[in-house]
Amino acid sequence: MNDTICAISTARGIGAIAVIRVSGDDAISIVDSVFSAHRTGVRLSDRKTHTVTYGTISDCYGEIVDDVLVSVFRHPNSFTGEDSVEVSVHGSSYVQQEVLRLLCSKGARLAMPGEFSRRAFANGKFDLAQAEAIADLIASQSKMSHKLAISQMSGRISEKLADLHNRLVELSALLELELDFSEEDVEFADRKTLIDTCVGLQGEISSLSDSFRLGNALKNGIPVAIVGNTNAGKSTLLNLLAEDQRAIVSDIDGTTRDAIEVPVNIDGVLFRFIDTAGLRETSDEIERLGIEITKHHIQKADIVINLIDASDERTAALLNGAVSKILNVINKIDKVGPDRISELEKQYDNAVCISAKNDVNIDVLKARLIALSKANEIAESDVIITNERHYQCLRSAGEALNRTLFGLKNGIATDLVAEDLRLCNRHIGEITGQITSDTVLHTIFSRFCIGK
Amino acid sequence: MNDTICAISTARGIGAIAVIRVSGDDAISIVDSVFSAHRTGVRLSDRKTHTVTYGTISDCYGEIVDDVLVSVFRHPNSFTGEDSVEVSVHGSSYVQQEVLRLLCSKGARLAMPGEFSRRAFANGKFDLAQAEAIADLIASQSKMSHKLAISQMSGRISEKLADLHNRLVELSALLELELDFSEEDVEFADRKTLIDTCVGLQGEISSLSDSFRLGNALKNGIPVAIVGNTNAGKSTLLNLLAEDQRAIVSDIDGTTRDAIEVPVNIDGVLFRFIDTAGLRETSDEIERLGIEITKHHIQKADIVINLIDASDERTAALLNGAVSKILNVINKIDKVGPDRISELEKQYDNAVCISAKNDVNIDVLKARLIALSKANEIAESDVIITNERHYQCLRSAGEALNRTLFGLKNGIATDLVAEDLRLCNRHIGEITGQITSDTVLHTIFSRFCIGK
Repeated sequence: MNDTICAISTARGIGAIAVIRVSGDDAISIVDSVFSAHRTGVRLSDRKTHTVTYGTISDCYGEIVDDVLVSVFRHPNSFTGEDSVEVSVHGSSYVQQEVLRLLCSKGARLAMPGEFSRRAFANGKFDLAQAEAIADLIASQSKMSHKLAISQMSGRISEKLADLHNRLVELSALLELELDFSEEDVEFADRKTLIDTCVGLQGEISSLSDSFRLGNALKNGIPVAIVGNTNAGKSTLLNLLAEDQRAIVSDIDGTTRDAIEVPVNIDGVLFRFIDTAGLRETSDEIERLGIEITKHHIQKADIVINLIDASDERTAALLNGAVSKILNVINKIDKVGPDRISELEKQYDNAVCISAKNDVNIDVLKARLIALSKANEIAESDVIITNERHYQCLRSAGEALNRTLFGLKNGIATDLVAEDLRLCNRHIGEITGQITSDTVLHTIFSRFCIGK
Repeated sequence: MNDTICAISTARGIGAIAVIRVSGDDAISIVDSVFSAHRTGVRLSDRKTHTVTYGTISDCYGEIVDDVLVSVFRHPNSFTGEDSVEVSVHGSSYVQQEVLRLLCSKGARLAMPGEFSRRAFANGKFDLAQAEAIADLIASQSKMSHKLAISQMSGRISEKLADLHNRLVELSALLELELDFSEEDVEFADRKTLIDTCVGLQGEISSLSDSFRLGNALKNGIPVAIVGNTNAGKSTLLNLLAEDQRAIVSDIDGTTRDAIEVPVNIDGVLFRFIDTAGLRETSDEIERLGIEITKHHIQKADIVINLIDASDERTAALLNGAVSKILNVINKIDKVGPDRISELEKQYDNAVCISAKNDVNIDVLKARLIALSKANEIAESDVIITNERHYQCLRSAGEALNRTLFGLKNGIATDLVAEDLRLCNRHIGEITGQITSDTVLHTIFSRFCIGK
């Protein structure tokens, strides 16, 4: 596990600088072999931990690849816990690739996604839920998702789970005790107390797993499909919300074919607005495919903006399929008189009247979206689950605890009940990585970005 | 000039980490005010230059924004020559923005594009041509453009220009000497020698400025327009060259509307392939606009691939407008017999016969492109101009020198001749920044990326 790995740790694309991370037993000597320090000629092997050295990286022909800054971190005081080096190069993609190529020619290998974090986890730098929080932190695009990730990274979820774990262990101990003496047909633990404890734990586990729907939406952005007849102004509204020209706008019916998804941060809450093809009968094959996709997005969205063109005499498009929240929005109110507006307001419940073209009432629309998101209903002390894997583990733990409870209530043999309780605790332990298989670890870390 | 500036120096987008650069008199104290070191609690103000400290950045409410690594560089041993700090944060765009916001609330301000480099230039860290080379290095996408940038960054162009500058100064001195004694009607300098020196310099300046056309193409990518009838396989060829699905491919005539430009690195030389709308008469308004754009790309391309569909009986599209290099490529040879192929080969000079669909003869096509690019004709010792500004300065210098030469040959008053010679030298000095105005500096550095 201690071979030396390397990867670009900064974002792809062009920046002033980029950072290449190297970690493993030979990290320092491998970088040393292609590096020469300016003026001083000092070797990296002679540098202390947490120091930076300025110098040049050259290829095997002595040709300069780049001027770089090299930071040395010595075991165990590094992110991974191993000897590590960070090479800060100029942000050209060519230079980045060339330095990686050079390092590999000297004995390093390209890191797998998440491999640095996996090594840090293996070296006890953090638990699994915290490692996953780092990935979430990196992906965070809004105040809300950042807050959730920092809370998880700081160990708040881990603490809550450790607490659950300890109480489950205690419960198990009582049951196991009874099991040891089962031949003697003695009930050591008071069944009533056991059942009460179990019910309490069950409530906590299910409120944790129930927090996932909200947590997931807040983390990844609340999907909002903008749906309506062709030319209702969907793309204009999207561009206005995104404060950018993201979708092509024209007066021609059916301009938008591909569904365009744009993440927009409104007051710290991330929404993912999806501009869809207008709903109408069409003979255009590509547009027809677009409309199929629209229907799919309606199914998946948390909120559907039903955009009605006030100036359009056609009846509004039908929103088929079960949708959690429909927000009726009447657009182009600049084009019609007050009579038409009140007629439409009667027709559509709780409608927001806007003019996307003239930026009228967009603030009202945003406030309604925030309210529908329920983001403001989270208290400081709430522990919110944002990770699909944690959710699945909690679900499985909850099911095992349900079986435990059923067993306790219905006098099922104690050894079977105890086994369900152990299973419940195992699922809880899987979240923080106390109990994990290689396969699980692989699945988790392979979802990380390269260089993390 | 020494107020404290900050900016994100790594590429935009999501990576494992991002680096925020801070430079100026208060760089260390500003970062210190939002930072607390893990465990040790050490202050950055107590840390030596070129050291890294691990800790936490918190906002004014004490809420953790991120766990970070902070590198301290003390004046004059930093990129800018000022006190500087590099903060390595997790690569979330939210975290990056939040840390910048915090630093600004403590007295830093957002850096203008290129402001770090401008300060480094002002502090004598490098000359202007070298600063521009850093920008080129960052933008380099191929072995060739990287090589050109490293050569310029190492000071090879600066040396060449310094040499020209010194010889021009010498020439000026001789002329000025004559000028001082002009009342006495004595010619101190031998006119013949002056003229010969001048002709020599003129040759060197014009060969430098002539190198720009090649240098520019090698740096920015050689524009290659792929042109042909609709459905000749232009998008298929583009995708094959790009080794990626970049353009939508279908059997429907006129699938490509927008011109798609894809940079492709072939054997270290960067080409910019431009897939264009097929040329045909059309009533589709959007497609017609696409064809207009195609004609524009033909004008601008260095190389035009004239793609002929061997199985298409229509005559090939006309390539109007002056084009430097046309490369005839006969596609879909898998669809026709040998007779048809030799008929087409007679019709189109030097044609390459390929099958884009079956990846036949693409190597031959690539080799022909490399040959047409002239990239391999550059010798190790050649000084190649790649910068538009340098080219303009050299052109102006060349013109001033031409006037000098004309003056020397035609006995124009020495003071006028001397003035032209001074002007020539001034243009040369502008390239390395020995002589520059604030406006010129502003124009140059504002083209840099933010954070550089």
